[in-house]
Amino acid sequence: MGDRPLKVAILGCGVVGSQVVRLLEEQADDLAARVGRPVELAGVAVRRIDAPRDVELPAGLLTTDAEALVARDDVDLVVEVIGGIEPARTLILSALEHGASVVTANKALLAEDGPTLFEAAEKAGRDLYYEAAVAGAIPILRPLRESLAGDRVTRVLGIVNGTTNFILDKMDTSGAGFAEALEEAQDLGYAEADPTADVEGFDAAAKAAILASLAFHSRVTAADVHREGISDVTAADIASAREMGCVVKLLAICELRPGTDGPGGGDETVAVRVHPAMIPRSHPLASVREAYNAVFVESDAAGQLMFYGPGAGGAPTASAVMGDLVTVARNLVAGTRGVGESAYADRAVLPMGETRTRYHVGIDVDDRAGVLAAIAQAFAEHDVSIQTMRQDGRGDDAQLVLVSHGATDAQLSATVEHLRGMDIVRDVTSVMRVEGADDQ
Amino acid sequence: MGDRPLKVAILGCGVVGSQVVRLLEEQADDLAARVGRPVELAGVAVRRIDAPRDVELPAGLLTTDAEALVARDDVDLVVEVIGGIEPARTLILSALEHGASVVTANKALLAEDGPTLFEAAEKAGRDLYYEAAVAGAIPILRPLRESLAGDRVTRVLGIVNGTTNFILDKMDTSGAGFAEALEEAQDLGYAEADPTADVEGFDAAAKAAILASLAFHSRVTAADVHREGISDVTAADIASAREMGCVVKLLAICELRPGTDGPGGGDETVAVRVHPAMIPRSHPLASVREAYNAVFVESDAAGQLMFYGPGAGGAPTASAVMGDLVTVARNLVAGTRGVGESAYADRAVLPMGETRTRYHVGIDVDDRAGVLAAIAQAFAEHDVSIQTMRQDGRGDDAQLVLVSHGATDAQLSATVEHLRGMDIVRDVTSVMRVEGADDQ
Ligand SMILES: NC(=O)c1ccc[n+]([C@@H]2O[C@H](COP(=O)([O-])OP(=O)(O)OC[C@H]3O[C@@H](n4cnc5c(N)ncnc54)[C@H](OP(=O)(O)O)[C@@H]3O)[C@@H](O)[C@H]2O)c1
Ligand SMILES: NC(=O)c1ccc[n+]([C@@H]2O[C@H](COP(=O)([O-])OP(=O)(O)OC[C@H]3O[C@@H](n4cnc5c(N)ncnc54)[C@H](OP(=O)(O)O)[C@@H]3O)[C@@H](O)[C@H]2O)c1
Repeated sequence: MGDRPLKVAILGCGVVGSQVVRLLEEQADDLAARVGRPVELAGVAVRRIDAPRDVELPAGLLTTDAEALVARDDVDLVVEVIGGIEPARTLILSALEHGASVVTANKALLAEDGPTLFEAAEKAGRDLYYEAAVAGAIPILRPLRESLAGDRVTRVLGIVNGTTNFILDKMDTSGAGFAEALEEAQDLGYAEADPTADVEGFDAAAKAAILASLAFHSRVTAADVHREGISDVTAADIASAREMGCVVKLLAICELRPGTDGPGGGDETVAVRVHPAMIPRSHPLASVREAYNAVFVESDAAGQLMFYGPGAGGAPTASAVMGDLVTVARNLVAGTRGVGESAYADRAVLPMGETRTRYHVGIDVDDRAGVLAAIAQAFAEHDVSIQTMRQDGRGDDAQLVLVSHGATDAQLSATVEHLRGMDIVRDVTSVMRVEGADDQ
Repeated sequence: MGDRPLKVAILGCGVVGSQVVRLLEEQADDLAARVGRPVELAGVAVRRIDAPRDVELPAGLLTTDAEALVARDDVDLVVEVIGGIEPARTLILSALEHGASVVTANKALLAEDGPTLFEAAEKAGRDLYYEAAVAGAIPILRPLRESLAGDRVTRVLGIVNGTTNFILDKMDTSGAGFAEALEEAQDLGYAEADPTADVEGFDAAAKAAILASLAFHSRVTAADVHREGISDVTAADIASAREMGCVVKLLAICELRPGTDGPGGGDETVAVRVHPAMIPRSHPLASVREAYNAVFVESDAAGQLMFYGPGAGGAPTASAVMGDLVTVARNLVAGTRGVGESAYADRAVLPMGETRTRYHVGIDVDDRAGVLAAIAQAFAEHDVSIQTMRQDGRGDDAQLVLVSHGATDAQLSATVEHLRGMDIVRDVTSVMRVEGADDQ
């Protein structure tokens, strides 16, 4: 490869791509010093040549023929920031086959079909890096993959979607309902016109799959992730959380569950889920406000770590892409590869029903003698023990609030079904999982 | 090197070393899978063979002859967790010369004489990693060195000493004075019998030098760091901070300062200092409680990031050592080296007097007409503008509290000197820098 500059092809020049182009130009001198070789733009593939861009591009670099760009002999590195499954997948595979290393921010593709990409990278002897795919600018994949490589990660709790955190934070601070908070998020550009991917947890589920794969050295895809969004969260849920000293967050939760041999045994499983949950206000994640992201990691030796920062946006996401680009470029210059994917532990994913969680349940009940005993009996029948039980109001307003100890999700949802069928229960007004406490 | 196991020599088997030994044994299977080769203990050097240990060691592995251990032909990796300057330095240099890669947690040595070690590693073609030297278990050096390698870091604010954070947190929550809080820290094992290294900021200054070197690609040693400890922080200072909506933290502050060409210009300088400072309670660092550490990083593209976790303790620190060990071992297996030190930017360190800071000043004044004007005039004479000024109490209890805008530290300290010499000033009761706001 001699001493010639490294050539980078960028696929996509939208929110993220335009910032990658800008940083490549602005930081050219520093990049050359850090990589040991100049890094130059080979070309930028887009859909529409004439669309307005957030960055000025040297003439002749734009192309609509992405396939030809990644196949060029002189391209050493490919940055994929188009998004979606196709043509991104075909382009990444083609880039690897043609001998380029790849950096991508594409969580959807990685969560759906990561193993195909990892195997292609392995076969080609090239790097595939994707720090920007989870939590934007926050360095979290590299710490999981490298810094904690000599430790045993047992749990990852992430606020990995800025849109939903913004909405829930608004609901918490202003008492607004979901619809109103969503509208504000849309007005401010934090939510898209069609907010489904964010609000229903699809985006967070993709990130949960990526986090769980890395943390537990196993293959977890988006299809393995139990997913619930925040569109059913009500102002009453938020108020109820507040009364318990809690706050509601949409969490991506990845847990290592002991198998029959207990913790560390051979048949440990992985539980991965995304749902709104109440967490204590004293938990480090509780103070993550607005559209910020944070990932909380628990491991045997390190204890509790948290990584915090902007989870999206052109420049922050581009920062993560650029960090990967420098690493991958350094590896090319040194003639080596970074750490590839590792799925040696090959742990099974635990079905949601068998996952241990805790429930917060709000119930409208008739205010008459024996009600408490009957409710407690319903929990007991499903082998769910109650941690706290509180009665608010009297008569027609009587409302019971219960928080369970840890039990399987199946037991807990059966308990809620049971409650809904009881005569004395007028309505189950709020059901939400509780996380971030020790007793799971 | 064939397929034989990698052999690790550990120098020191105290708080950290004993946990490294434990993890090496407990995680043996995972380590082998992650490194691609089994990792075995070659020997453990200590001062006293018969001292009680926190870990059981296979017979025959303990030695008091560290020099012979690092010189052994079959040792691939050396972990130095003795601490201090000598014999640690000689042992690390000898290990590198004998072809081993080295992992160390020794901030004191790195801050005093890092360049000698880095050059030796470079010359030997081996790795020298030291994540555990700053903020214990928190992955911060790797993110600075790799994740942010395509970005421009402009500021690092760290709570990097758990002892002082515990003391200041106690003073804040209980109203205790410094001496009382220190005693409690000692009773709980958070402070040593001789607390000087922590309390006077030496430990934090060593970490600041390491952080600044990495963040700004320049050589910064402990001697370059302006250092003030917390032993002069009073309960009144803490109360005054509280009234301003602030909290007092001992901060390691590393800043990139624009040169004559402005930000990004060729003559940017580096400002590095450790001192107690008031930060707004809304700042992410303000919620770092007890003995926890956190490092807050600002960069051009990523924006604001924070890394949080346990900054000390045997197991957490060993987690960081083990992460480095896996990386270094993977590099040995792949026949490569990680990113070496980079000091290409070679930025000068700005003297403290020229560093821009902000001051909070509390003054006991005579309560008579013209006092405010005279005080304001004193600030004006030194070209320091006042951001806020508040008068508390009347008559003999009159107390003025001022916060300046950003000015050089020399201007600010001259202003305080001037105030102390004024007739109407009975006492300057509190002087503290203010950080974490935008206007510096
Ligand atoms: N935005 C964020 O904050 C963020 C954060 C983390 C990760 N990500 C990820 O980053 C990736 C890019 O996101 P983005 O927000 O930058 O998207 P975007 O603004 O929609 O930009 C997409 C770019 O891809 C180009 N493109 C689309 N189809 C193409 C095709 N068939 N061939 C060539 N180019 C094509 C578009 O060209 P035209 O400009 O000509 O239409 C556009 O420049 C996604 O994977 C996303 O999940 C984004
Ligand atoms: N403790 C923490 O929380 C922490 C956190 C971050 C970084 N670190 C760093 O980690 C390093 C080790 O700290 P530590 O707390 O583990 O220290 P420690 O408990 O005092 O242990 C030091 C060990 O080194 C051995 N030793 C001393 N002199 C020796 C010599 N000349 N030859 C061979 N062995 C010798 C001692 O042997 P004996 O046992 O026989 O006396 C002891 O086992 C230091 O650089 C420290 O700054 C510590």
